[in-house]
Parts: sequence; C-alpha cells; structure tokens
Amino acid sequence: MKKIVIIGGCAAGPKVAAKCRRMNKENEIHLYTNENIVSYSACGLPYYIEGIVPKIENLIIRTPEEFRETGVNVYLDHTCTKIIPDEKAVIINNEKIKYDELVLCTGARAKDIKIEGGHLKNVFKLRTIQDGIAIREKMKTAKSAVIIGGGYIGIEILEALIANNIKVEMLEAGNQILSNFDKDIAKIIQNHIHKKDGDKVVIRENTKVEKIVGKDEFVGIITDSGEVIEADFCIIATGVTPNSEIAHEAGIELGRSGAIRVNNRMQTNIEHIWAAGDCCEKHCLITKVPMYISLGSIANKEGRACAINVSGGDEKFEGILCSFVTRYFDFTISTTGLTEEHALEYSKFIDIEPIAATVKKHDRAGYMPNTNEITLKLVADKRTGEVLGAQAVGKGDADKRINIATSAIKSKMTIDELINLDLTYAPSFGTPIDPLLEAAYKLKKIIDNKRHN
Amino acid sequence: MKKIVIIGGCAAGPKVAAKCRRMNKENEIHLYTNENIVSYSACGLPYYIEGIVPKIENLIIRTPEEFRETGVNVYLDHTCTKIIPDEKAVIINNEKIKYDELVLCTGARAKDIKIEGGHLKNVFKLRTIQDGIAIREKMKTAKSAVIIGGGYIGIEILEALIANNIKVEMLEAGNQILSNFDKDIAKIIQNHIHKKDGDKVVIRENTKVEKIVGKDEFVGIITDSGEVIEADFCIIATGVTPNSEIAHEAGIELGRSGAIRVNNRMQTNIEHIWAAGDCCEKHCLITKVPMYISLGSIANKEGRACAINVSGGDEKFEGILCSFVTRYFDFTISTTGLTEEHALEYSKFIDIEPIAATVKKHDRAGYMPNTNEITLKLVADKRTGEVLGAQAVGKGDADKRINIATSAIKSKMTIDELINLDLTYAPSFGTPIDPLLEAAYKLKKIIDNKRHN
Repeated sequence: MKKIVIIGGCAAGPKVAAKCRRMNKENEIHLYTNENIVSYSACGLPYYIEGIVPKIENLIIRTPEEFRETGVNVYLDHTCTKIIPDEKAVIINNEKIKYDELVLCTGARAKDIKIEGGHLKNVFKLRTIQDGIAIREKMKTAKSAVIIGGGYIGIEILEALIANNIKVEMLEAGNQILSNFDKDIAKIIQNHIHKKDGDKVVIRENTKVEKIVGKDEFVGIITDSGEVIEADFCIIATGVTPNSEIAHEAGIELGRSGAIRVNNRMQTNIEHIWAAGDCCEKHCLITKVPMYISLGSIANKEGRACAINVSGGDEKFEGILCSFVTRYFDFTISTTGLTEEHALEYSKFIDIEPIAATVKKHDRAGYMPNTNEITLKLVADKRTGEVLGAQAVGKGDADKRINIATSAIKSKMTIDELINLDLTYAPSFGTPIDPLLEAAYKLKKIIDNKRHN
Repeated sequence: MKKIVIIGGCAAGPKVAAKCRRMNKENEIHLYTNENIVSYSACGLPYYIEGIVPKIENLIIRTPEEFRETGVNVYLDHTCTKIIPDEKAVIINNEKIKYDELVLCTGARAKDIKIEGGHLKNVFKLRTIQDGIAIREKMKTAKSAVIIGGGYIGIEILEALIANNIKVEMLEAGNQILSNFDKDIAKIIQNHIHKKDGDKVVIRENTKVEKIVGKDEFVGIITDSGEVIEADFCIIATGVTPNSEIAHEAGIELGRSGAIRVNNRMQTNIEHIWAAGDCCEKHCLITKVPMYISLGSIANKEGRACAINVSGGDEKFEGILCSFVTRYFDFTISTTGLTEEHALEYSKFIDIEPIAATVKKHDRAGYMPNTNEITLKLVADKRTGEVLGAQAVGKGDADKRINIATSAIKSKMTIDELINLDLTYAPSFGTPIDPLLEAAYKLKKIIDNKRHN
C-alpha cells in the first residue's frame, strides 16, 4: 500500500487520481486543490461565457463526492506551499503531509501582467471557473470590450462576446494573431472574422498596450502609439505561465520554458516526485526539442501515463505534435506539427529543409448542400519527403484533414506515401481526391521540380 | 506525339483524359463512352433521387464541350466491342480505330440478375444517370418500394426513398446488411434505421427473392419462404460486375474477381493497354491479396496514376485499404482496413492474429450542444500490435476517426503508438482522449492480459 499525494485539481490531477484508483484498489489517494472546485473542463469556459453551455456545473467532470465514493480523498481550498523531498512531505495549508509518491499537477495560470492598471475592476483573465463566471456576469450589462492578446483564448473569448452583441477591440502585440499558425493562414482567419463581423470587431496587430486606465474601475487602454480605446471591460489573454515555483524551490529541475522537466514516464529529477499536465514541459516528436504548450488533451494523456507509472506499471508518454483546433463560430482553425515559419526556424538547428504548398478546396462534393471551402497548407521536408506539418482553416471540415496529417507525421509518412492514401469517400463526407491529398500532390510536384532544376 | 484512346466516361476515364492533357499538350486524346453523358459523379445519384441535389446537371463534373476546349475529343454513345492488340486497334461503333496507348475505364455495371421478372417495368437498378432519373421520376407517384440488397447502395437508396415518404421493404439474402462491416456493427446500423424509421421501413435479413411478379409491370416479389410482398416499384441493388468482357476476349488477363488485372503502374499484361477504375482488380495493402471493390475515390486515384504513366511518367498506385463511408441521414457509417470477421478469415492464409475492442463514446465534449455518440470498433494484430482495421458508426463524427485509423494502418502503426497520438482537441471537435485512442487503450489492455495469461 502506497500513499499517493496529488497536487492540482483541474485536468491532469483528477485524471491521475481516477486512473490510480482504477489501477490499484489498495493505495491511499489524496488530491489537493487550491480551488473551490475540482475536475472541470477549463477548455469549456469560453462556451460557458458564450451561453452555449448553460450552467457552470455542466463543465464539471467528477464532483468531490463522486471521487470520495471511489475512495479518492479530495480537499478543496488546500494550497501547497512547499515540497520537502528529503522528508517525502509537502506543506499544505500549513500542515505537513507525508507521501510515498507525489504527483504535481499544479497547472498553469494566466501570465502575470506587468502592465499599469492590470489590477483594476473589470479587468479579467480567463483561466479558472471564477474567471468564467465573472466575465459572463459582466457581459450582461456591457456593450463593449477590449481583448488584449490574439492567441486562441483571445479568439474563443471573441466568439463568446460577439455572440452576445459586445463590440470588441482585439489588440495583438505581435504582427499576427494566432502565432501557432503561419502568417498567411492567420491572415485568412483574420480576414474571415473581419468579413463576418467587421461591424462588431476590430483586430489590430502590432499594437501594444501601454497602460490600462481607470480610477477604480476599468475605463480604457492606451496603446503604444498613444491612442485611447475606451470600453466597458477588458480581458487579458496573453498566454499562460506554468505553476512551477514550489517545484523549483524544492530542487525539481525546470526546463528553459520554466515548466517542470519530466522524462517519458512523467518522472521529475527527484525520486518519487512526478508531474503531469500544464505545469510540465513537453517534448516535440518532430524537432526532439523541449517546448511548452498548455492543452487539456495532453494533460489527460500525461495524467494517464503518469498514473500507470505511479501505480507500478510502465507506460511511456513520448511527446507531442502541437496538434491544435479551435473555431470562430462555424469557421474551423486547426494545425498539427510545424508551421512553415517554425520549420524554417528549426531548420537552422535540425536537419530539415522545409517546403510548403497550399490548396483551397471544397471539403465535400461540390454539389452537396453541406459543402464548404477549406484552405489547407502542408509542410514537408524537401529531402526526405516526410510530412512536417499541416494547417487547415475554413467553414469546411478542416479538422478531419489535420488529424490524418497528425497520424502521418507521427509515423514519418512521406508525401509520396500520402498522395494515394485510401481515405474514405462519399459525397457528403469528402471529395474523390481529398484536399489533403491534393495538397500532397501539389507539394510533390514542387519538390520534383526543385530536384530537376 | 502519341494517340491515347480511352474507353469509358464516368470517373476514371475523364480523370485519365484530363490528367493526360495536363501532362502533355501534344498527345492526341480520344475518350469514347457508350453513355450519352460524360464525366459525372455516380456517387451523387442517390442524393439526386432524394432531391438534395436538385438537377442531374449538378452531378456533371466536365461537359463534352469543356473537354473539347482543352483538346480532348469526347465521343458519346460510342460502344467499344472489340480490342485487337496485334493491330493496336479497337472496334468502336463498327469502326476500326488505331491507338498508341489504350486505357480501359469500362467501369462496372449493376450485377446481371438471374431472377424471374427482373425485366419488368418499374424494376430498377442504380448505376447510370438514366437509372437515377427513372427512379426519381417513378418515386413521385409511388408510395411503396422493395429494395433487393442491403449493401451500401441499398442503404443510400433507402435514405432517398424514406426522405420522400416511400414505405420500403429491404430484403437482404445474407445474414446481415452491409457485409463490409462486422455483424455486431451492422446490427447497430440496422437498429438505428428501425428505431428512427420503423414505421416506414422493414429490413429482413436471410430473405432471398424467389421471383419478381407482375404481368408487364412490377407488382411484387415472392420470397424464398413463399411470402408475397407487394409494392409500387422495386430496386435491385445487389452489387456490381466489372465490365471486363471485351478485355478478356482480347487476351487481357483478369483476376479471380473477374476484373482486369493491373500492376501498380496500371498496366495490363498486354503492352500499351492500361486500365483504371471499376473495371480493375484492386490490391489490398494489408492482406497483399487481390480483391474487388467499386469506389469513385479509388477510380480517381488510379486514373491519375495511370495518366501519368501513359504520358511517360512513373507513378505507382500501391493499393487500397477498403476505406469506406456512407450515411443514413445524420448517421455515419464508416470503415477502413479489415473487419474482425474478415481478419479472422484471412488469418487462415496470412500471418495475423486478430483481436478487437469496441467503445461507445461521445464524439465531442459531453457538455457541447453538437455532441453525439459513436460506436468504434478497432481491430489489431495481437502479436505485433499493428492496427488492422476500424469501424465507426453513429450520429457523431465517426468518419474523422476512421481516416486517422486509415493513416495508421497504412504506416503500420501499432496500438502502443496510437494510444497517445496527439490528436487535436477542443470541446466542439472532440474529447480530451479521443474515442479512437480510448479504443486503442482498451485493445492494449486486452492484448496485455492475453499475453500474461
């Protein structure tokens, strides 16, 4: 019998707890969270704000009671402040608690902002259930908002606000929204948003926020060019920071990203201390380079692998491919592997020669009523022909193609092998030669031409 | 300059013609079809009958005029009756026509029926544009129909008829509908149809048609148990036969399926004679065994590869994975690779030990409004762990998972590699751990248990 202590209650922590329980009925399992809620889908918060998900309870996966019924002890509002590896103990709410195995699932928090006025009332972030409730409440009486940050959380909040008739100014410090996409693809997304909702939203790139203004409450922001933008409230969506401080203080190694370094069994450098989810650094299967990304699907898979190992099994979590999907209403935004720009960047360090092709195609037979266009960009290594990445956006079924590419990248499929892949076809599901295969064929021709010239 | 003669005008023929033109501007290209129309989507005919596709013209991909504008000569109502390889000539409408390269895209026809009364008025098949027009016309004044055959064409016609308030008796001679699915999965499909439309449709397995009755017009059928089923019309959908007779008479080798045997460059055994599409035998990439299947996506890919080779290039078409999708209204029916039953059958001849697991899961986050269930069955080789096949059905997005599996099968991915595949996730697109990965995990546990016991 072992005593397993888990710190963190959003995605990875509950997954570890539930799986540890299923793996072994004898072990004592204790899950501590500093929130007043446990086991919820943070990814669903934008849809709760939008109103598609009616109640916050809908986002809860397992209640503390459900956990307790299976013999997992759940402690809400319990904050871990210190890890003492030599004593195999943690300090939680000022009490010393011993462990046999410690699993850190401390997650990530909205990036600490260093901007004047960030503390004002009606300046929100979106990370926790409380944040979601506060934004939805504020939205009811508001007419306009500023979103700081054009990443995917920004886009998801944008949908929520636009659906609720809030006018939005979205300010992006970089030269494009959605930096996990190539500029040309990000531009297509941005153009679509402006075309669909140009009367309600302005997206400004290369716009830094100098200062948030207001006395007690938010009044507006001042940009780096001195412009003043007034609004009823503000949401800061500039990314996340892994919660790795207590780990670091205890001598647990962090990666360059500031997240906890783990091996492929989810072990930290200190024996009997494990980590999973958004507090951990990730390993990119293509570049073989450590990186950081915060996604619920990865947290769940890491949590499962971690639980198996903690319970005495042997399960590897080899790494990720940066696969990602979101939407702006009926417009899908999806990517996997390396973008062309990232691949070019990496080609300075790793042995790849990236080349890309883009196609714009119907997702289904042109004569079917549910047909829509997608734009698909495929990236491959010119020398080996191996698929390196794919991005697909549009009202059509872009996500389907991206996941096929994900599988192809994982198994080092070449463009030549991809071209004739026997994908399913029926008029209401695809085209006789799928857009992904069209892109592969286009890319093959480009590669062949370059080889001959 | 070469003279390329193409026989057949539905899918593969036009693809060969168009691609040959793009490959080489000098070659003379002649396409002959025995139909009065060229280059159309036969797969779209059920949706034309249903009324979703308003006009038959919507199904036409390229008109003869469009072909002629690119310099492809198209001849409608021209029937090829003989191939004379020694003279490099064909007889078309009693005229001898010489070729440098001959491409056979003669397609397939609805299976020749050997049933009494098959010739009666209001007994239809569905293969050509004319068939589609005749059925749609008949449907306007009819109230009931018999569909003979529970294959995918039968199911697609069933949707069309039910949508138009026709009462249907579907008779399947075998012990399940959709023989490219396992019995348990076919049963789920059948139960869904009965649950949704049980007041309008009866599906009877193990029911052979003894005789079609009527004087001049169809009146009804008599089953092998002597039961009489009356209806306003009848559609025979018992599969297709490759049009390979003239090829066979000319000494072109056929496979055991009766379809033309080709190598991976789409060459027949006779020099300068090629074939592509539904008249050809296929090569299964998993079993390495020749087989026959008739699908527009394969016809298009074979056509492309064939055209490249005919034009002097070098393109391989390695084979297929039996990937397939259709629907019954909003219920998706999809498969790839081997079913469990087929895999068990093949395990007598090839070195596999099939094992399967089935999961029933939401396709998206449970709290999203567009969430639906899918049932997914995954088949793998117990010894190597390699994925052999997958079937997915349900109102949810089943097709997405099947195409990921297709890619996995092609690259011989193992269950262990599949389990943590970094698929995209967002609440409106999937679940943190995808149903496909859940099935893989379930299968892994079954395999591990068997290894230990």
